[in-house]
Amino acid sequence: MCLSGTLEDKLAAVAAAGFDGIEVFENDLIATPWSPAEVAARCADLGLSIDLYQPFRDLDSVDEEQFGRNLRRAEAKLDLMVALGADTVLVCSSVGDDAVADVDRLAGQLHTLAERAAARGLRIAYEALAWGRHVSTWDRSWEAVRRGDHSALGLCLDSFHVLSRGSDPTGIADLPGEKLFFLQLADAPHLNMDVLQWSRHHRLFPGQGGFDLPGFLGQVLAAGYSGPLSLEVFNDVFRQTDPARTAVDAMRSLLALEEALAGRDPRLPERVRLSTLPPAPPVAGYAFTELAVDGVSGPVIATALATLGFTHTGQHRSKPVQLWEQGRARVLLNAAVVRSDGAGAAAISALAVETADPVASAARAEALLAPVLPRSRGATEADLAAVAAPDGTEVFFCRAGADWLTDFLPTRSRPSPSAGLTHTDHVALAQPFDHFDEAALFYRVVLGLQPDATTEVAAPFGLVRHRAVTDSDHTVRIGLSVALLRRGEWAPGVPDPQHLAFATDDIFATARALHAHGAPLLEVPANYHDDLEARLDLAPETLAAMRESGVLYDRDEHGEYFHLHTHVLGSRVFFEVVQRIADYTSYGTVNAPVRMAAHRRLRMAGPKR
Amino acid sequence: MCLSGTLEDKLAAVAAAGFDGIEVFENDLIATPWSPAEVAARCADLGLSIDLYQPFRDLDSVDEEQFGRNLRRAEAKLDLMVALGADTVLVCSSVGDDAVADVDRLAGQLHTLAERAAARGLRIAYEALAWGRHVSTWDRSWEAVRRGDHSALGLCLDSFHVLSRGSDPTGIADLPGEKLFFLQLADAPHLNMDVLQWSRHHRLFPGQGGFDLPGFLGQVLAAGYSGPLSLEVFNDVFRQTDPARTAVDAMRSLLALEEALAGRDPRLPERVRLSTLPPAPPVAGYAFTELAVDGVSGPVIATALATLGFTHTGQHRSKPVQLWEQGRARVLLNAAVVRSDGAGAAAISALAVETADPVASAARAEALLAPVLPRSRGATEADLAAVAAPDGTEVFFCRAGADWLTDFLPTRSRPSPSAGLTHTDHVALAQPFDHFDEAALFYRVVLGLQPDATTEVAAPFGLVRHRAVTDSDHTVRIGLSVALLRRGEWAPGVPDPQHLAFATDDIFATARALHAHGAPLLEVPANYHDDLEARLDLAPETLAAMRESGVLYDRDEHGEYFHLHTHVLGSRVFFEVVQRIADYTSYGTVNAPVRMAAHRRLRMAGPKR
Repeated sequence: MCLSGTLEDKLAAVAAAGFDGIEVFENDLIATPWSPAEVAARCADLGLSIDLYQPFRDLDSVDEEQFGRNLRRAEAKLDLMVALGADTVLVCSSVGDDAVADVDRLAGQLHTLAERAAARGLRIAYEALAWGRHVSTWDRSWEAVRRGDHSALGLCLDSFHVLSRGSDPTGIADLPGEKLFFLQLADAPHLNMDVLQWSRHHRLFPGQGGFDLPGFLGQVLAAGYSGPLSLEVFNDVFRQTDPARTAVDAMRSLLALEEALAGRDPRLPERVRLSTLPPAPPVAGYAFTELAVDGVSGPVIATALATLGFTHTGQHRSKPVQLWEQGRARVLLNAAVVRSDGAGAAAISALAVETADPVASAARAEALLAPVLPRSRGATEADLAAVAAPDGTEVFFCRAGADWLTDFLPTRSRPSPSAGLTHTDHVALAQPFDHFDEAALFYRVVLGLQPDATTEVAAPFGLVRHRAVTDSDHTVRIGLSVALLRRGEWAPGVPDPQHLAFATDDIFATARALHAHGAPLLEVPANYHDDLEARLDLAPETLAAMRESGVLYDRDEHGEYFHLHTHVLGSRVFFEVVQRIADYTSYGTVNAPVRMAAHRRLRMAGPKR
Repeated sequence: MCLSGTLEDKLAAVAAAGFDGIEVFENDLIATPWSPAEVAARCADLGLSIDLYQPFRDLDSVDEEQFGRNLRRAEAKLDLMVALGADTVLVCSSVGDDAVADVDRLAGQLHTLAERAAARGLRIAYEALAWGRHVSTWDRSWEAVRRGDHSALGLCLDSFHVLSRGSDPTGIADLPGEKLFFLQLADAPHLNMDVLQWSRHHRLFPGQGGFDLPGFLGQVLAAGYSGPLSLEVFNDVFRQTDPARTAVDAMRSLLALEEALAGRDPRLPERVRLSTLPPAPPVAGYAFTELAVDGVSGPVIATALATLGFTHTGQHRSKPVQLWEQGRARVLLNAAVVRSDGAGAAAISALAVETADPVASAARAEALLAPVLPRSRGATEADLAAVAAPDGTEVFFCRAGADWLTDFLPTRSRPSPSAGLTHTDHVALAQPFDHFDEAALFYRVVLGLQPDATTEVAAPFGLVRHRAVTDSDHTVRIGLSVALLRRGEWAPGVPDPQHLAFATDDIFATARALHAHGAPLLEVPANYHDDLEARLDLAPETLAAMRESGVLYDRDEHGEYFHLHTHVLGSRVFFEVVQRIADYTSYGTVNAPVRMAAHRRLRMAGPKR
């Protein structure tokens, strides 16, 4: 149930992503025309074992007649498992009104089923659902299994059911490993909602949510569990995305989980303590960012960059790529990347990070299943390793010191008057709806970054979710956003704009320079500043300067944030200028609706600039 | 916040839908370039009053210094209101840690603000948020207002905040009407979730959810409230749909609410007791359903109808429309409706219900803001009134007795051998994502139907929500469905298929006839019937017959449901045959995933049939 599609679609996807085995969920089996034996054969062809079968709920019952019926049904499923070649069946704690409260009676019923299973060479893995009627915690399910006392009866642990309840997993390491029959892993964002709904709609792959999966898994492995790590992720988005991509995302999450676990606990088996992933070399800021432009958007953006104080310093030796620089901020305008969204197309096509070891960075990315991009380069050009992120953005790894700059011939252009921009503060990438969580995990683990908190804002055309990832020194910040619901026919601004944000040490001096040079700055409504004045104790001269220059403002407990924006240039790119005061670590997301409304107004008012 | 877009977009939409006034939410004002006076002027131009301003939260504070700051901020907003021409400001109960618990102290702070408001000719409407820290119920907010004891201080009631907590609204009728300053209405589905999240994402317009809005509103009006009925609906979907359509949907919901209230309570004012809506004449089944077909899909569907036992009995006098009949089931194939989705297009284009008074039905639909469709007809043809539903389906109203049949010349075709189909059981319409709740309300109130329960199933390509509406005699059943998330690039079957379901009194005799005549029936996996056998105590001969004929099965506490399906014919239409046993009232939705997987398999396997 991690994947979209029919059983046939799913098997192809998980095999291609390199998984060793699967769980079969009854709903998929019921809907396939393949007999259980044919499913088994197909899995064998694909190199997949069938590690678990999930055929039903609510086995135990205080009504012995009902339990008899449940048992008969279970036996039909056990017979089916023999044909399927699955040796372990999942039994969840009951949610029915007739669920057995008495743990000895429950253990007895589990024992009875274990007998029937053992007769067929099968075994029962009993799991506590977080919303089980009488058994909702791992220790209580263990108690039932222990008292059930049968070699074919063991425990299935599911990280969601344990961690969603805030249960302490610490004691798990003390369980006998041979009684741990199965392990299901799921992460989830911390949400304040009914646990059943949370579980059914919002689970995520490990590393995409807020749970401590490495800590949980460490407990299970320390107990001696040696079975599969199975993913059981009910997620409304994954249910409808391309299963081939989701399966790769899932595998990447397991690789990153293994790394997070490595070296944690001397009790762990050797194979766990040694992660096979090349470690992430430290990053040290953006070497460059690249915009794909066409014949219409290219000159518009070039002009805008000049008004922002950038100088066209270089021209690529062999490609239609311009280098624009100001301070340590470097932007490439690439007219060679064909985009299909019509005249005036523009998009952020690549970002390049400086790392201590580009070869190691690229090797890590590849080990994390990032598609490696082919490079076409001249004999004397720098060899830049690049991979594709889930949103299509190319991620380059560059050595500190910028040897790639030798690919560019100096233009000897007259320098634009500087506007005081010092470096690239962040890159903001609106994500395709289906790939937000995948992208956040990708950027984080491939580059070795940390996630910031997730925020949601009510934007003019729907709710928008923001999440950023950054290194500990904040040299590389990547802001990701996505609409909470996929945008439809009415909502304008699809796809949402992306932007590059540049830092300044003096927003007002920069703003004056930008105004003087005719930068296409976004106007900010007077009502916005009136509200700031009513809400906050800002110095009158600061407020006056903000009004004059169209500067927006945010603050948190760590510091302050001043920022301004340009118009959208070409189809979907704009620039932001930011000044961070003290340790403000966010992105002024609270002001996004004002900026979006202003962009909307320009779009309605006239032709593209 | 009911609508998507900027303030400018919203004002245009509500004025066009016929609203008298608006609330202004601070976020919209902050993002508009219009000054408050310009907003007021624009509203006046559009005939809209500004009935309420919502500028902030968390007024009261146990920290008097903080309260002082809050008060200064409030005064800035009161000054703004004078320019805006809004005379009432909303103050919500505080959620902050510093909220005032002592009701007299709270009343004192409200009194202070009321003084400041009164000095400007304004008034304060105090509202209990369901998640307010100390004030979360209407009676507690009333206590604060009562003790605040100021003519410029009154109560704002919000149906969501009262009904979501399960609070009893009964005492509201006893409040002094002149102290009820404002009324906000929102419905919501019954959900088991955190009330704040429920409120922010899932509110609906009155009549679209599960709350007793007429009962609540009756209380408020009985108290003597005579102010506006304001809609405050936070809904993730409405936030991104065309605001012009959402505003019409909103107005329709108020018209239906007024009708539901009429005659309820002798204490209500005369104007409320007399609804202006023409009552819904009783419906009596489907006169016909119509499929739009093209040159490719038309013959395919005609052949399929013949194999289902339908006979091509009539040809329209002036249009390329065929009439097919079996029992009381009548299907039109209309080749005159141009569809743009390519060769093989097919869709349910119209449904016609028999009503006791077609003219009254049409008048009601028009009063409920249904777009009336122009009719092009020959001099001798029946005058069928028709309106457009939100999904584009045309809804016709026909007199019982079928005088419209005289539009068709008999074909004298050789009758197809009957398959025992007696009538149209239901019409199932997959809805466009943005318009599901709008459509459910539309079909229900325009036709005077009742809603069934909403169900969700995990379909192969994402979760799907189902809701049906029907008359009390179940002569007209309309099944509506929508994906929980708008489908994206991968999910196949977009748009989702629609279908017509025909009833039989003997599903197995019908199935044998269909097989004999080569109907394009969907094969059902053996695994499906194996599971039925394991789960249910079905008679072996019944199960064998189901296996043989590809019949699916469901049951509930009222009865049983046997059904089978055809392939998808043309781009998006299939047929279902159903037999209802006893009082089964549902639609076999539990089997939808099996059917969808089978349809998917055919689509993958080969060319369209």
